[in-house]
Amino acid sequence: MSEKNSAKSNIEKMGHGLLKEIREGKNPSVDVPIRALSNIKFNPTTRMIEMGLNKAKRFFFNVAHVRSFVQTMEAAATARELIEMDKHLSLRQVFYRMKRTIPGTEMNIVDEQEESNKAIEDLELIVDSPREKLHINANKNGSVAGKVIIEDHGDTIDWSKLGSGGWSIPSNVEDIKFKKVNAKFIIYMEKAAEWESMHEHRVWEKQDCVIMASQGQATRGVRRLLQRLSLEFNLPVYILVDGDPWGMYIYSVLKYGSISLAHMSESLTIPNAKMLGMTADDVTKYNLKRHIIKFKDIDKSRLKQLKGYDWFKSKEWQTELGKWEKLGGKVELAALTANGISFMAEKYLPDKIKNKDWLD
Amino acid sequence: MSEKNSAKSNIEKMGHGLLKEIREGKNPSVDVPIRALSNIKFNPTTRMIEMGLNKAKRFFFNVAHVRSFVQTMEAAATARELIEMDKHLSLRQVFYRMKRTIPGTEMNIVDEQEESNKAIEDLELIVDSPREKLHINANKNGSVAGKVIIEDHGDTIDWSKLGSGGWSIPSNVEDIKFKKVNAKFIIYMEKAAEWESMHEHRVWEKQDCVIMASQGQATRGVRRLLQRLSLEFNLPVYILVDGDPWGMYIYSVLKYGSISLAHMSESLTIPNAKMLGMTADDVTKYNLKRHIIKFKDIDKSRLKQLKGYDWFKSKEWQTELGKWEKLGGKVELAALTANGISFMAEKYLPDKIKNKDWLD
Repeated sequence: MSEKNSAKSNIEKMGHGLLKEIREGKNPSVDVPIRALSNIKFNPTTRMIEMGLNKAKRFFFNVAHVRSFVQTMEAAATARELIEMDKHLSLRQVFYRMKRTIPGTEMNIVDEQEESNKAIEDLELIVDSPREKLHINANKNGSVAGKVIIEDHGDTIDWSKLGSGGWSIPSNVEDIKFKKVNAKFIIYMEKAAEWESMHEHRVWEKQDCVIMASQGQATRGVRRLLQRLSLEFNLPVYILVDGDPWGMYIYSVLKYGSISLAHMSESLTIPNAKMLGMTADDVTKYNLKRHIIKFKDIDKSRLKQLKGYDWFKSKEWQTELGKWEKLGGKVELAALTANGISFMAEKYLPDKIKNKDWLD
Repeated sequence: MSEKNSAKSNIEKMGHGLLKEIREGKNPSVDVPIRALSNIKFNPTTRMIEMGLNKAKRFFFNVAHVRSFVQTMEAAATARELIEMDKHLSLRQVFYRMKRTIPGTEMNIVDEQEESNKAIEDLELIVDSPREKLHINANKNGSVAGKVIIEDHGDTIDWSKLGSGGWSIPSNVEDIKFKKVNAKFIIYMEKAAEWESMHEHRVWEKQDCVIMASQGQATRGVRRLLQRLSLEFNLPVYILVDGDPWGMYIYSVLKYGSISLAHMSESLTIPNAKMLGMTADDVTKYNLKRHIIKFKDIDKSRLKQLKGYDWFKSKEWQTELGKWEKLGGKVELAALTANGISFMAEKYLPDKIKNKDWLD
């Protein structure tokens, strides 16, 4: 609650500041942290992709600024309305909420969703509150099962008693309370298909853990839920992704953050994440060489890009990336099925976890 | 259970038939119903897109047939193994399970997933069992909340007590038992964002219903769950999709089935589905004309295609499609937000349902 109030009071603080400038006959302005690559860096101490301190002043009486200035104010008004009503909207819904004609003109406040998205991102930075706390939700996509009991909106939910489906992870997990956590770690999977297999084999029960999946790049709700569980209960998060540059990038986004959400790193990154698989050594160890799917040019250049990122500069990761270059192709998690229907759940996973066979 | 056994016994029946032909010195063969457009039609009596009775014989000793013959047998062996182990795999995982080198040759049984997919589809037809009963799962994606209590894999799950997330719909809903259904209807939404809004406004509680969403085209698990609830409890299903040809097609697939899954219509279609919105009349009635997004050429030609489909040939639908042609653009459900944050939940939905303002 206090955090919600802080988002609202930060919006109001901004509003009061502007009113003061108007009363004093000044040109109303806001300071917007600069979201360019030049203002983003990997911080080797915190091990997060972070935003620098550079800011730009945006003025109302400035033809180059006025449109985005007004859009940011409209986003602020919408967020304040949402917080007061205690309701949430998606980015798309907020776009339509903001899209109205300015009285006495033929101009819309926003014409394209890109504009409202950008205004919301600016607002996040100006009032130092993630979108979720402004009651603007990201996508919803993901499932969880395991030895955890939560409370959410008055309901007590036992993640170990939800049949074959599991709990559907909401886009916004800020209000969830963890009542009981009997898990020793969390396994995050890139794909729902692997999640269903692991769930059917009751991996979370046998291994005292939580299993979670989104689809492809993890949604913000999933990332935040992983982070909260990991930080609040000191649980390692084991990541399972396909053995290709895109999978490795999913791992790095979960662990270190991303360039586009650098300003959100603090509330999204998971320092305690480990890359469990698919590793290059797994390919030989588990007899998967015959399932290598040759890299396309785009995969090769993506792999080269990863090698250049600061957060992949450790010796361990440079070696790993080199091994994949040598393998020359990707290997999917699903390929483990070639070794048996239960191989991943009953051999691969337990072995890797027992032997601490992961990359950090 | 009995249905599972029937899938397994149908596989075994096919196997015994082949063994008999081999013992009698005949050329082993299976009858595969033909999946071409020529063998598919809209049945105006059942109001389903159905498959005709045309079959083709596929022989083992036939250079043109042998590869797909062997692939179908391998799919059958995998399905039988899965049923016996009481485990499930996804299409991708089954592909890797089937992909092995034939002993004494350098040939793989399958090289691409398209081949294993096709073999599984053939198997579905030959043994007259949907993929789910062969323990081969489709995608998992979707959430549900509402006045229903189910039993699934030993857990009792109350869909009204699952916080903001709801129950995550599994890819396979064949084993679910409905313990208590206090709902008068089901609302199905194309997008998770609308689902979250409706859930936050507790529409299912206020209206005694169930709310369900997938993302875009509904997954098979979602379709089957909708169908089971609708048929077993005689509940109408109200569909909410964006006002464009793609949304209308989603509606028609849910109600009548699709060409590619014509052989599955009986276990997937929902005759009791109504198109609640977005209808062309909604656009004027709810003041959404300013939110029309002009059709692109691809939308226009898709709209024309819909007009030609047998299942859109009713006067009501021809008029509706004509109105959209005249509007010349699409209107998204999210646009309702322009009328207020709670407009969809508190005005649009209750009004439309009360006034039976839908298309059939």
